[in-house]
Amino acid sequence: MKKISRTSSSKIVLLVIDGVGGLPHPETCKTELESARKPNLNHIARESLCGLIDPVGSGITPGSAPGHLALFGYDPIKYNIGRGVLEALGIDLELKSKDIAARGNFCTIDDKGIITDRRAGRISTEENADLCRVLSDIDIKGAKILVRPVKEHRFVLILQGDGLSPELTDSDPQQVGLAPKKIQALSPQARGTAEIVSEFVSQARSRLKNEPAANMVIMRGFSQLPDIPSLSEIYKLKPGTIAVYPMYRGLAKLVGMQILPAGDNITDQLKSLRQHYRDYDFFFIHFKNTDSRGEDGDFEAKVRAIEELDNALPPLLNLNPDVLIVTGDHSTPANLATHSWHPVPFMLKSKWCFPDNVTEFSERACLAGGMGRFPAVEIMPLAMANALKLDKFGA
Amino acid sequence: MKKISRTSSSKIVLLVIDGVGGLPHPETCKTELESARKPNLNHIARESLCGLIDPVGSGITPGSAPGHLALFGYDPIKYNIGRGVLEALGIDLELKSKDIAARGNFCTIDDKGIITDRRAGRISTEENADLCRVLSDIDIKGAKILVRPVKEHRFVLILQGDGLSPELTDSDPQQVGLAPKKIQALSPQARGTAEIVSEFVSQARSRLKNEPAANMVIMRGFSQLPDIPSLSEIYKLKPGTIAVYPMYRGLAKLVGMQILPAGDNITDQLKSLRQHYRDYDFFFIHFKNTDSRGEDGDFEAKVRAIEELDNALPPLLNLNPDVLIVTGDHSTPANLATHSWHPVPFMLKSKWCFPDNVTEFSERACLAGGMGRFPAVEIMPLAMANALKLDKFGA
Repeated sequence: MKKISRTSSSKIVLLVIDGVGGLPHPETCKTELESARKPNLNHIARESLCGLIDPVGSGITPGSAPGHLALFGYDPIKYNIGRGVLEALGIDLELKSKDIAARGNFCTIDDKGIITDRRAGRISTEENADLCRVLSDIDIKGAKILVRPVKEHRFVLILQGDGLSPELTDSDPQQVGLAPKKIQALSPQARGTAEIVSEFVSQARSRLKNEPAANMVIMRGFSQLPDIPSLSEIYKLKPGTIAVYPMYRGLAKLVGMQILPAGDNITDQLKSLRQHYRDYDFFFIHFKNTDSRGEDGDFEAKVRAIEELDNALPPLLNLNPDVLIVTGDHSTPANLATHSWHPVPFMLKSKWCFPDNVTEFSERACLAGGMGRFPAVEIMPLAMANALKLDKFGA
Repeated sequence: MKKISRTSSSKIVLLVIDGVGGLPHPETCKTELESARKPNLNHIARESLCGLIDPVGSGITPGSAPGHLALFGYDPIKYNIGRGVLEALGIDLELKSKDIAARGNFCTIDDKGIITDRRAGRISTEENADLCRVLSDIDIKGAKILVRPVKEHRFVLILQGDGLSPELTDSDPQQVGLAPKKIQALSPQARGTAEIVSEFVSQARSRLKNEPAANMVIMRGFSQLPDIPSLSEIYKLKPGTIAVYPMYRGLAKLVGMQILPAGDNITDQLKSLRQHYRDYDFFFIHFKNTDSRGEDGDFEAKVRAIEELDNALPPLLNLNPDVLIVTGDHSTPANLATHSWHPVPFMLKSKWCFPDNVTEFSERACLAGGMGRFPAVEIMPLAMANALKLDKFGA
């Protein structure tokens, strides 16, 4: 792609409706998309090349990171982002390339050291911030240590220094009734880091001993920023992202996107798009509510989230980008109340897209689209081609 | 898959209708499946996610081993199982890792040594056992030799000893009207083994000279046990197989399936399924007759085999497994009277499968299914996902 990509004034907009794919409601036999009133999405579908994407592969339920990396054109198995890094990105922490990040839980243990609640009853974010302050001045030779609160019982541990390695086992046993596991080096060069982290856990335990909310920490997902080429390097794009939630901004930053103001909702996001439209040639717009309501298991609320998005679309349609892609990073059927493996509806509208016969944006309708079922990593080359930003390959 | 698989009580049943795919009859323009009365298969199709599988790849006609390995989730090109090993496993021979196994046919040759029947008129299994006894005490320096009857004209040759190599050419020319070929070493280290096997064939010919049933042997598929991870290792499954024919039991054993009683026909097999239903969480059920009648080139008989299967299905449907997959390991169009490269109808029924609009189990109908055309190796991940036995991939 590097060799055949070229810059041009054409604009690509990638609108990601998080968790948009669903399953039929047991009574109506219609999915969330099929149940929603969505004239704008259907209007786009009529002028688009449609299909269904597999973000990672058949049967694989993607986390948010692999789901988005695939949409951005990266092999989501090759670039597997660690949990620690993802949590750090989720709170807008600026990680440097050598930093080690880990996800922590404040938890409770009994007097024998056995975990009684992995989430300490989901303590409040305020209690969490207090506990992080208790740990904030832990000082261990070999690394600078940062402890930052996320939501409820979640925190991020950052180690900064030279010669650190993320090749460590978790201390989180992923179930109650067991003691936290010893953190072990998975390679000789990680031994020093293992000692530092073990010492951190030991000091944290001492300091939290008499805290009423949580008296222990469990750690998992030690990781570093991946070495990932940026979208500008690969596609010669100048990409911007407009996302309300930090984790998606973090993922976008990871691949070199500029973070643009997003406001509070999709209407704000599309205003920001208009404001910055001249300055970038690729925009990633992230809509979260569909996934949240799907995870709540609330079918009707997910339908309303789709309708909320649809209502907000006219300013985007008025901009009439050279290439408009609408899809999701994975499915989140309200019936399952979690991410799922089901392929995700996709549509691409451009002057050159060869529209198919699909007249509705839905799982069943897109199945009959011109792209059929295809891997999500193919979207970026297709977007580039439709934006006339790709040279011929080969003589 | 190892990392994200988890055990649960849900049940997966994989029903393989051997060689089920066909081609349109020249007069009716309907395939065997389209011609058969098959209300149960069609009923399953209406509630299933359907598609067409490529067992190995476009244009590739699979043997039984690659066809089944792909269904079990193994790359059939990476794990190319020798015919000899399969035959040996199919008769419950305990192969050791250094043993060499080969498939033999008792055949007939004329007085010029030209093969007149590669299967010696499909001699009875009793005659076969008698002939194996005639060869049983052949003694050649360098290897211990075992000769074991399979069904009809088929037998297995096992060589045990040090420094043996399976890198040998076949003596079976795969057609009548030719003499058996000389067995040759494909690598320098196989020269000794080539001499041993050639001596075996020579002594066998002498001993069989005046036997009325078959007067020669032809050998093929010299091979050793492959190093293949089991289904329990990869998917944490407890798998059982219910197959009437030895080779399919052998293949199942190779990937760590337990062999369960199968009786003589599909009705017996489904009784066995019911009896063992509680003790396993994955079942492979193999139905052979469709392939046999297809290989006979008997269109009507293959149609009847499909109807025989369909009639037997109610006990399976009553068990209502969490995931039911119905497909084939390859096509065997009666018009071609042999295995073929054509993609094979597939359906998967589960509570979470997202049924499509397919209402019939046939080649043409499944083409419009929700899976479209896809590689057979994707079936296992999809089955695991639908059984809710897979964790999310990535953070």
